[in-house]
Amino acid sequence: MIGVDWGTSSLRAYRIGPDGVVRSRRDLPRGILTVEPGGFPDVLTQMIGDWVGQGERRVLLCGMVGSRQGWIEAPYLPCPAGLEALAAAAIAVPFEGAEVRLLPGLSWRDAHGVPEVMRGEETQILGAAIGPAEATVCLPGSHSKWARVKDGAVLGFRSHLTGEAFAALAGHTILARMMDPRARHHPGGFARGVARAKQAGGLLHHLFGLRAAGLFDEITEDEAASFLSGLLIGHEVAAALEDGVAPPIILIGAPALTERYGAALDAFGVPHSVAAPDAAAQGLFLIAQRLT
Amino acid sequence: MIGVDWGTSSLRAYRIGPDGVVRSRRDLPRGILTVEPGGFPDVLTQMIGDWVGQGERRVLLCGMVGSRQGWIEAPYLPCPAGLEALAAAAIAVPFEGAEVRLLPGLSWRDAHGVPEVMRGEETQILGAAIGPAEATVCLPGSHSKWARVKDGAVLGFRSHLTGEAFAALAGHTILARMMDPRARHHPGGFARGVARAKQAGGLLHHLFGLRAAGLFDEITEDEAASFLSGLLIGHEVAAALEDGVAPPIILIGAPALTERYGAALDAFGVPHSVAAPDAAAQGLFLIAQRLT
Repeated sequence: MIGVDWGTSSLRAYRIGPDGVVRSRRDLPRGILTVEPGGFPDVLTQMIGDWVGQGERRVLLCGMVGSRQGWIEAPYLPCPAGLEALAAAAIAVPFEGAEVRLLPGLSWRDAHGVPEVMRGEETQILGAAIGPAEATVCLPGSHSKWARVKDGAVLGFRSHLTGEAFAALAGHTILARMMDPRARHHPGGFARGVARAKQAGGLLHHLFGLRAAGLFDEITEDEAASFLSGLLIGHEVAAALEDGVAPPIILIGAPALTERYGAALDAFGVPHSVAAPDAAAQGLFLIAQRLT
Repeated sequence: MIGVDWGTSSLRAYRIGPDGVVRSRRDLPRGILTVEPGGFPDVLTQMIGDWVGQGERRVLLCGMVGSRQGWIEAPYLPCPAGLEALAAAAIAVPFEGAEVRLLPGLSWRDAHGVPEVMRGEETQILGAAIGPAEATVCLPGSHSKWARVKDGAVLGFRSHLTGEAFAALAGHTILARMMDPRARHHPGGFARGVARAKQAGGLLHHLFGLRAAGLFDEITEDEAASFLSGLLIGHEVAAALEDGVAPPIILIGAPALTERYGAALDAFGVPHSVAAPDAAAQGLFLIAQRLT
């Protein structure tokens, strides 16, 4: 089979054997934002046409390709929802030469009725947290997600605007004068930010404290951006832990991010592990097995 | 006497009688950022030259005019510090025809050693919170400040980057697509934001929830910016209350801001009052009385 994770800014395809092992993987910078309306079949053909030509007949898509801005909209599936429910909700997409299906994302509402959404992450989460025991999966990013998973189903999840808040605060407040948001990661500065997040006072107060530390030459330009990153990630982790987690927390993401979240979780004394690569492929394979 | 509050972006002068009553006030958009190096005497002459010509001989300046980017740098005075200490730390500034003095700002360190600074707000705070009993003064703004005051001295204070965070998040994240940061204040949206801030989950999670509410058409474009404002101010107020306050909290600032903070404090059930106008003039007068 072929599994495709088609996000806002990236497109990744996996050729997966009947044993679930990834035989081949490909990336293209053809996220849905780069695709003209009506252009999805052509881009998919560029991506996997040769694999289809070689006999692959089953294709499963996940991610923003199922959003209103994507190929065909697949309405969000409310949590709790797992492998079976996702398979049952897959939408058939017309495509020459193969049976293409597209998965919905998941939605959830917290105790106060506030909505949550994800598209694509659910396949990574269900591919990484296998087994009957409850697990917590964290996917760092622009909109970090923390999901509770049990027995192949996502029970619920929360998102945090951490990555976007970092970019906005580092680039568009007085903090911008004291840092380069693209500066090399500074582990000491990051650790200081996480330690600050564990103290009282609130995030907005801690943000001003970073500015004041700059005024008193108590932080260097080299470490300021990493301090801000540690501060925000520390606040995110603190909120997630308050919500309750089932350790070890499984981290999924680029190494640069999972290492930072791992360091923050260490500072809070919470065990964690990093998911095997290609968790999305594993999730797509497990869902494909349940397609009728 | 003449009291002058010379900030980053604005310049305000008061002519004050020996009874402490403001006889006249003036504003100019000549904050220190608009003044060339060496240009401060000329701008001050434009502002108050006629009053000096009419016989006023004592001039007291406060605000960013005493910073490194100002006229002459007056090093921060560490808290606790009050009217007497500020008067004693005033720096004489050469000026034709009058005795001009310039006040330092205040600094403070919290229990963790993190620094805090203010320049100019201290005169407003000490002008508004008069008397021997402990009081809490809140000055909303780009860098909101909450000060503990007792017997004419500032014991300590905390700042929050609330106003700047609002501008950065409203203008430079995905939230920008769902709001106009300059939209008219929407009291219902603001109240929803404050109510959300009182719930668990953390600010970064609440920011994503606003985005998700937009996706589900559960918030209108009219109310989204006010929701964000309420969310941030609510988080600031919650952090300030956790730190301990002495109600009624005295609010100082533009009516549009003190009304919002008043509404947020109401939602938390905390009594508050608004300082009389020209608290800065009152503070400058009280300090001037203590000059040797």
